Amino acid sequence: MTDNPLNIEGAVCPVPLTHNEQIVMGHGSGGRMSHDLIRKTFLAAFDNSILRTGDDAAPLEIDGAELSVSVDAHVVTPLFFPGGDIGKLAVCGTVNDVAMLGARPLYLTAAFILEEGLPIEILQRVVDSMKSAADEAGVQIVAGDTKVVERGKADGLYVTTTGVGLRRAGQRVGGAEAKAGDVVILSGTIGDHGIAVLGARGELGFTSDIQSDVAPLNHLIEAMLDASPNIHVLRDPTRGGLATTLNEIAAQSKCGIMLNEDAIPVHPAVNAACEMLGFDPLYVANEGKLVAMVAKEDAERVLAAMRKTHYGEEAVIIGEVTAEPQSRVLLRIAIGTTRIVDMLAGEMLPRIC
Amino acid sequence: MTDNPLNIEGAVCPVPLTHNEQIVMGHGSGGRMSHDLIRKTFLAAFDNSILRTGDDAAPLEIDGAELSVSVDAHVVTPLFFPGGDIGKLAVCGTVNDVAMLGARPLYLTAAFILEEGLPIEILQRVVDSMKSAADEAGVQIVAGDTKVVERGKADGLYVTTTGVGLRRAGQRVGGAEAKAGDVVILSGTIGDHGIAVLGARGELGFTSDIQSDVAPLNHLIEAMLDASPNIHVLRDPTRGGLATTLNEIAAQSKCGIMLNEDAIPVHPAVNAACEMLGFDPLYVANEGKLVAMVAKEDAERVLAAMRKTHYGEEAVIIGEVTAEPQSRVLLRIAIGTTRIVDMLAGEMLPRIC
Repeated sequence: MTDNPLNIEGAVCPVPLTHNEQIVMGHGSGGRMSHDLIRKTFLAAFDNSILRTGDDAAPLEIDGAELSVSVDAHVVTPLFFPGGDIGKLAVCGTVNDVAMLGARPLYLTAAFILEEGLPIEILQRVVDSMKSAADEAGVQIVAGDTKVVERGKADGLYVTTTGVGLRRAGQRVGGAEAKAGDVVILSGTIGDHGIAVLGARGELGFTSDIQSDVAPLNHLIEAMLDASPNIHVLRDPTRGGLATTLNEIAAQSKCGIMLNEDAIPVHPAVNAACEMLGFDPLYVANEGKLVAMVAKEDAERVLAAMRKTHYGEEAVIIGEVTAEPQSRVLLRIAIGTTRIVDMLAGEMLPRIC
Repeated sequence: MTDNPLNIEGAVCPVPLTHNEQIVMGHGSGGRMSHDLIRKTFLAAFDNSILRTGDDAAPLEIDGAELSVSVDAHVVTPLFFPGGDIGKLAVCGTVNDVAMLGARPLYLTAAFILEEGLPIEILQRVVDSMKSAADEAGVQIVAGDTKVVERGKADGLYVTTTGVGLRRAGQRVGGAEAKAGDVVILSGTIGDHGIAVLGARGELGFTSDIQSDVAPLNHLIEAMLDASPNIHVLRDPTRGGLATTLNEIAAQSKCGIMLNEDAIPVHPAVNAACEMLGFDPLYVANEGKLVAMVAKEDAERVLAAMRKTHYGEEAVIIGEVTAEPQSRVLLRIAIGTTRIVDMLAGEMLPRIC
């Protein structure tokens, strides 16, 4: 399932689900609770080798065409926030997931669940924003569906997008491909999206000019793949933040990841907001950033290519892939001092995407 | 968009949308209001040649592979009803839409929006039902997503499925392909699904044993395509019923359709329920039936092939395609007497799929 639920090794599973259990907000966090639900409920039932790959998109081969297919439901609240809205998010989120297999996104489908009473003007703004994001990404929206539910049975609107793209022949990119010695590259600052959405909810307690980073990253990825055939992993650290995403990759690739805290860029306003709210930016969602694991000898070339693109201007090296400790992410916080960075445990920021 | 929104010719559009307009339940009916919304809001923004084909699935060509892709959001209430549930519906609905382009459905994605407090046991039953339907159809669920919204912000669960299939080379099946002289075949009784769901809601005023017909029709379609290369149109008459579906096809193909009322099979219990409720079975949803427009010379061969399959046992000829009147469906109710059968105008049965 999307958001890497299948890295079974990384998940701790203290008790089996019982008949009394209910869905709680934490099941939508993208962290450990999401992984547990998906593993025990969805993967247990639907199990197949494609689903088991555990990437943000499914690698399919149909009639010789090597495809990348991904789906995301979008329930962000509020519908509009600084830097974006649910429509832009729905297009960019799926475009990015498709592209993270090293694929060129081509087509999207969009299914709307609309709440009775939603002003059509609001819907129109969301649709126009989707069109604009699709144009920037260079994808077409080719199929859709519209359902309406009664007042109170939705929250304005939800939109689910599915994307189809074409993978590059001969280039194998996926969460299980990280290799000891690879360099870890991050495309820019972390935490912007999560804090921007919190700000739009009035939950910061102060006004802020933090904008969501929501953006289509497929052109950035094209530039990276053009620069090097040795890009092993690409992933966007969305729900659960950079920490959760790196834990997923470490588990999939059975490797360790060592990060340098000083190297990880955080917007000062995001840092300030996180300090006030007691959040760690490593766990705050991004919607326009990617991490890449790249062969060391190609790292500078890839970095240079990234920095020539709009969404990769601030790309930096933040760490390296190690052989040990397997399935662990460590953060070097001072010379000779490291701490373990775990996956997001419970629920931190609901309805963030 | 799915459910044939794009047959522009068939839609009457009395007033443009204004800024004061809101979403109402009728926008989800699958009838004229749905078509108007989709045309003015979605198609106006996303316009492209693939979307404009107006079939239940999008015909895509990627790297030489001729694909059929379709999406449907599912919001049926209640979640469980005689003969099926939201999970079976979500798999069969999308499998069927993909297959209606003359394609073999291969893969599905599934995105869940879960309401906080939903018993996991309920989710498990839905997921198990999806697995069972996917197995019957012979498709794999290869990607997914899970979001959680607060209590009251959904109605238990919604699930959106997207399907990808491979079209048969050289066989052109679509809503615009009906030709004057074609025979109209219906695979069985109409109205079962809509009445079964109403019964599950306790809205019939009496108990009934009517079961939903929800079923995957892809194997039936394979048998039909094997029997004849001259199947021009395939479509499942879901929301809006047979009447709306045939109006869509008549508009897409710029032809007329003449039906024989006596030939259209309706389960006696469905007929009785419709009479009590003031419904016309022609407008009641089906989820396991199809209509086909077939070249006259092949009709008997196709019928024979259908009747050998489980879901086509009761297939019958219900009418023919005519050159005139263009974009109209007529019903012969007695020798020499016909009436116009229009598209569903407003909203009849909300949350039926």
